[in-house]
Amino acid sequence: MAPHAPPAGPLEAATAPNPFPTPRKNERDDFLQAFDVFRDDILDLFRSYRLPAEGMAHVKRMFDYTLHGGKLNRGLTVASAYAQLTHQKQLQGDAALHCAVLGWAIEWLQSCFLIADDIMDQSITRRGQPCWYKLPGVGAAAINDAFLVEAAMFALLRKYFRRHARYSDFVDLFQTTIMQTELGQLMDLLTAPEDHVDLARFSAEKHAYIVEYKTAYYSFYLPVAAAMLLADITDEALFAKARGVLLPLGEYFQVQDDFLDCYGDPAVMGKVGTDIQDNKCSWLVVQALQRASPEQRARLDAHYGRKTEQDIAAVKQVYRELDIEQCFRDYEEASYRRILALIDEFKDPQLPPDIFIEFTHRIYKRKV
Amino acid sequence: MAPHAPPAGPLEAATAPNPFPTPRKNERDDFLQAFDVFRDDILDLFRSYRLPAEGMAHVKRMFDYTLHGGKLNRGLTVASAYAQLTHQKQLQGDAALHCAVLGWAIEWLQSCFLIADDIMDQSITRRGQPCWYKLPGVGAAAINDAFLVEAAMFALLRKYFRRHARYSDFVDLFQTTIMQTELGQLMDLLTAPEDHVDLARFSAEKHAYIVEYKTAYYSFYLPVAAAMLLADITDEALFAKARGVLLPLGEYFQVQDDFLDCYGDPAVMGKVGTDIQDNKCSWLVVQALQRASPEQRARLDAHYGRKTEQDIAAVKQVYRELDIEQCFRDYEEASYRRILALIDEFKDPQLPPDIFIEFTHRIYKRKV
Repeated sequence: MAPHAPPAGPLEAATAPNPFPTPRKNERDDFLQAFDVFRDDILDLFRSYRLPAEGMAHVKRMFDYTLHGGKLNRGLTVASAYAQLTHQKQLQGDAALHCAVLGWAIEWLQSCFLIADDIMDQSITRRGQPCWYKLPGVGAAAINDAFLVEAAMFALLRKYFRRHARYSDFVDLFQTTIMQTELGQLMDLLTAPEDHVDLARFSAEKHAYIVEYKTAYYSFYLPVAAAMLLADITDEALFAKARGVLLPLGEYFQVQDDFLDCYGDPAVMGKVGTDIQDNKCSWLVVQALQRASPEQRARLDAHYGRKTEQDIAAVKQVYRELDIEQCFRDYEEASYRRILALIDEFKDPQLPPDIFIEFTHRIYKRKV
Repeated sequence: MAPHAPPAGPLEAATAPNPFPTPRKNERDDFLQAFDVFRDDILDLFRSYRLPAEGMAHVKRMFDYTLHGGKLNRGLTVASAYAQLTHQKQLQGDAALHCAVLGWAIEWLQSCFLIADDIMDQSITRRGQPCWYKLPGVGAAAINDAFLVEAAMFALLRKYFRRHARYSDFVDLFQTTIMQTELGQLMDLLTAPEDHVDLARFSAEKHAYIVEYKTAYYSFYLPVAAAMLLADITDEALFAKARGVLLPLGEYFQVQDDFLDCYGDPAVMGKVGTDIQDNKCSWLVVQALQRASPEQRARLDAHYGRKTEQDIAAVKQVYRELDIEQCFRDYEEASYRRILALIDEFKDPQLPPDIFIEFTHRIYKRKV
């Protein structure tokens, strides 16, 4: 071993050139192009750490496999929220670059969570392909890959923001959001142990906690909060106001997710739902438990959280009898109206309502 | 879900009182006492996030189980290195507090790595007790626990250092070290796939890379670099000098680890070695491959990386024939002398050689 070290250490911090010198037209295409730049940044960094060829090949394959195929809603929200906060139509130069970095950082974070969650939930497919850990030659090494994606995400922030006045705030925001998400995942796992089905553990309160922490913070609050920091907003009251709309919006989104897990089209979704067999505290089963007769409750107790097709069909039969699908339709309308009312309530010139209205319309009645 | 949020957000940052107002005598006991303070800091933080009672109980149990029982060498090194860097005999006040925070942050990081590694390596015991993931009711949820320990570690740094002039440097140092360790773990896993034994993948170079990245950075460089930053050293040349000794020291330590995995006393070690059956690129097998006759090589090919007692015994038999134990004794003496020579080489008043000499003597001929 050479007694030297790569150009790392605590005092590193490159100043990075801007790969987006000119404005582009299609936001989504630009965003996808930026991925290649950022992935190559990370590969260059790993190369500077003398990572051997097999390692480089593994990491490139892993990034390309796990970071693609998502809807990119979270990542694209940073630029759209920033444009609205700063009253710009078309982002250029540093603003475009910084929004792309923050947007991809959120997408990378999401991939880190999904890689790990799929192992913990023993999921089969994700985004229309086998889960990463399911691929030959990956397996439990995917745990380390999930950590590596997280580390690479922070390296990306470091590369582009280390000299930015808000660097520590960005790091704190991402670290806090990661912790919140993990607390939600913890409650998700504790409420749905594989080996012990007990529907008495489920409740609307438990469901609301899991949903807020596991999904709403990173999917809804994080992209807007990152854009706010980039726009140099530091008043905590404004962040709290944003959370006041974005966390309920996140809850609505996750209830849709629970609904689509059971009633969505796997071909459209890119994954097969597993909530019933995984004994998950889904919104659907919480509704069913609130409405079930003793006889229906007995059937749920007997069949929920079990793996056979018959068990799953028996649970779905109870859902049908209770018309849980209609419960969801009613909830969807009520939530939509409630969120628009929340947006209407606070009139703050620093937080244009369109940020939240667009976000709401993007997910209203979504099929995927 | 209440549309409010816990006192988090990017702009949080408590100013924390100092639980060590007066100097103490026994460094190790003080350090252990500090653990309870920091663990309770994190539990208070999680309580502020409204974590339900089952979650609180799980996290407390997990912290107490996974963060205890180690030798604490890494954690204690921060205070001893800092005392030497600043020419103090007995640390007091903020200095004692800050060294304890940084020391425990490293111990927490280590626990995060061990929880995850034990799952990936399918290990059975750790620090004299079953691995955390092996406990009833834990299982794959331990993956999320490993992430939570990492997140809690950063929350600890945030609580005590958010307003410190070197906060971003500390964060960068920890993040970079995490990434280096994960790159080492990646190469460890790629070199030792479970399902495909091919001893041609092993080499002294591969072993040196894995050892430097997976162990030396976080175990040897990190505690001293953290103490240097706390002592307000910022000259990258000095960090490079420190690495010049600490990384070879880390290599020596990991070769001992490889040796003890096979030749150590499990009762003293607190774990049963699994390198042979796990197909690990251990220093021992690298030495054996360099020395084996074609017939001995054939036996290694036939039995390495297989799980039965007979296979393990056959590999150990080849080691015996080649007197790998004596190879290790020779390596140990040569390394010890080489490291002392490296320390002797650089005379820098800002880096007292005792930091490195003590470190070296602490691990020389260790049995555990």
